[in-house]
Amino acid sequence: MDLSGSPHRRFPLPFRVAGPTLILDKARAVYNMERMARKARVQGVRFRPHFKTHQSALIGAWFRNVGVECITVSSITMAAYFADNGWKDITIAFPVNLLETQAIDELARRVDLGVLVESQESVRFLQSSLTSHVNAWIKIDTGYGRTGIPWTRPGQIVCLAEQIERAGNLSLRGLLTHAGHSYHARSKQQIESIHGDTVDKLQQVRQKLASKGFHSVELSVGDTPTCSVVDDLSDVDEIRPGNFIFYDVTQLTVGACGQDDIAVAVACPVVAKHADRSEIVIYGGAVHLAKESLAMEDGTTVYGLVSRFARDGWGPIIADAYVSSLSQEHGVVRAGSRLFDEICVGDVLAIIPVHSCLTVNLMREYVTLDGERIETSGAA
Amino acid sequence: MDLSGSPHRRFPLPFRVAGPTLILDKARAVYNMERMARKARVQGVRFRPHFKTHQSALIGAWFRNVGVECITVSSITMAAYFADNGWKDITIAFPVNLLETQAIDELARRVDLGVLVESQESVRFLQSSLTSHVNAWIKIDTGYGRTGIPWTRPGQIVCLAEQIERAGNLSLRGLLTHAGHSYHARSKQQIESIHGDTVDKLQQVRQKLASKGFHSVELSVGDTPTCSVVDDLSDVDEIRPGNFIFYDVTQLTVGACGQDDIAVAVACPVVAKHADRSEIVIYGGAVHLAKESLAMEDGTTVYGLVSRFARDGWGPIIADAYVSSLSQEHGVVRAGSRLFDEICVGDVLAIIPVHSCLTVNLMREYVTLDGERIETSGAA
Repeated sequence: MDLSGSPHRRFPLPFRVAGPTLILDKARAVYNMERMARKARVQGVRFRPHFKTHQSALIGAWFRNVGVECITVSSITMAAYFADNGWKDITIAFPVNLLETQAIDELARRVDLGVLVESQESVRFLQSSLTSHVNAWIKIDTGYGRTGIPWTRPGQIVCLAEQIERAGNLSLRGLLTHAGHSYHARSKQQIESIHGDTVDKLQQVRQKLASKGFHSVELSVGDTPTCSVVDDLSDVDEIRPGNFIFYDVTQLTVGACGQDDIAVAVACPVVAKHADRSEIVIYGGAVHLAKESLAMEDGTTVYGLVSRFARDGWGPIIADAYVSSLSQEHGVVRAGSRLFDEICVGDVLAIIPVHSCLTVNLMREYVTLDGERIETSGAA
Repeated sequence: MDLSGSPHRRFPLPFRVAGPTLILDKARAVYNMERMARKARVQGVRFRPHFKTHQSALIGAWFRNVGVECITVSSITMAAYFADNGWKDITIAFPVNLLETQAIDELARRVDLGVLVESQESVRFLQSSLTSHVNAWIKIDTGYGRTGIPWTRPGQIVCLAEQIERAGNLSLRGLLTHAGHSYHARSKQQIESIHGDTVDKLQQVRQKLASKGFHSVELSVGDTPTCSVVDDLSDVDEIRPGNFIFYDVTQLTVGACGQDDIAVAVACPVVAKHADRSEIVIYGGAVHLAKESLAMEDGTTVYGLVSRFARDGWGPIIADAYVSSLSQEHGVVRAGSRLFDEICVGDVLAIIPVHSCLTVNLMREYVTLDGERIETSGAA
């Protein structure tokens, strides 16, 4: 086959891509990891990163180099995968699923396992069905409004704490929250304000518990915007960010990262151009990037931002281009005239995902800038 | 472990579910298949179903029982998977990706392969890089505005046809379109009107080609709403629907199916209830259902509809319940008081996906109502 004039020659990284490929800038990911680990260490806060973002035993092992020993996951399958890869202290940060108590029981025999509870029926069922010891975190809703007991109901929280303590196989470990509303913040000040409010509420609940004889109740917070932006995290005992290892367009928009912190991009082949609409069609759709979008201030809806690959990774985000729609395998890039004119069918664009966790979950394999392939567990 | 009072007992199908599980009503899927095959046969139209919806060799084999010999896929990986499973006539209904010509060339050696072209540069590159024979379909944009040469440019289409014919390794097979705008229709009449318009435009282009000496140019259309609803499809040569095998909330909203035609639902464990918001939290999020949504007439945004499992499958869609938000693993169901009161933590809800193709792509395994497990290729 004659490949002279091959479009492959226009892709500058030292390997070939064929279809959509998840590219990992390892140096950036490691830097993000080191920075967060240092922050936690300096402030005397336990760092329990959420591994649902990367879902990879190999990347998980990089965290050991920065002193991490405790991790967060979002499912029992993911917990078992990381337990098989040597992790001994794992919190499943998702309301405990009563249909999985057998697997929880088995896993709790071999690792120090934490689960989230927020109802008496869950605690009752765990008490009757577990034979192993499990740490219980009470999920507190501090304002996000998704899960957890509202912080305004300290009486209910105390009742649950008492029930946990009565159940011989459970220990109350602490209060856990996810301030997911920080994702709607658009400044450092707003994020700091949400964090101040979160800590204040958790401390009030902890005080109430202390007055009822519950001491050494820990506070655990988790969202990446807070952990990235807030300077003083010393009021909590544990942080559980996950997304910070890669960041993405959402975090950039929130102000939780700079664009040079973003460590993943999807290499998407250009398959068509439409000059009348100034649109570039890429091979890269909802089954690659995930159909997560951001409503921008100018009224556009963005499914990804756009960059070009260079010899050492990808360059700056192109200001006048964005992924304007995604169908199953197609992405449509609205492009300014310069990008539109430069790009040929057969070229490869770097698409920065809106939500890197969902993109990684779909892609299931990274290729580093050196061409090393890293698989995920595939266990969402 | 004592499982008396186990929530498992409240799940009526003859197997257990633990986490989110994709349930397949095989009888409905087979019925949908037979109905579409019959329609095509009666009207003398080739039935080339899109296999990206189910992505499974086993389900693919069911199509053989209804006389299907030609299929559509959306990627070279998927084409190779089905070729390995005995399919000999495959169209990749996605603008040809020049970075995959080597794989295309290899596959074209063993099957009758069709690709989509819409630009001179693509045809030029295929001509110079393929050694095998490939069928070319010119992608025509009849109004959807995603890909294809606009039907209003017959001169450009004729040029491309001439270029294809000059390239010795390509044959012009026909004109192919995807009237994706039918998904925005809300009545049979609207869908019929879109189909009439689509056929009219394709026929005008075909006539122009005939006047330039191109004869036996086929017309291929694909969307599920059209193929489901339009009675007379005899004006085209080929139909390529995919989604109709399972249908989903989108097709129900378009009017392409009834709710008893929907053949997949995701079994999602209930993990929390919040009475003040009348919300049920399920284990089933963006990594299971896919973050596809529908804006309803009443202003709500729906990420899935809700039903309850019964001994023979799932029951009617519950009118006053819907999935109101999805995060990575959580789904939130807004529930009327009756459902809210009936449901306990540990129960399992049936969630009807908004877009079944994306859900199947994420779940990667079906369980039939009898408990049979069917894997997908995993090759998006």
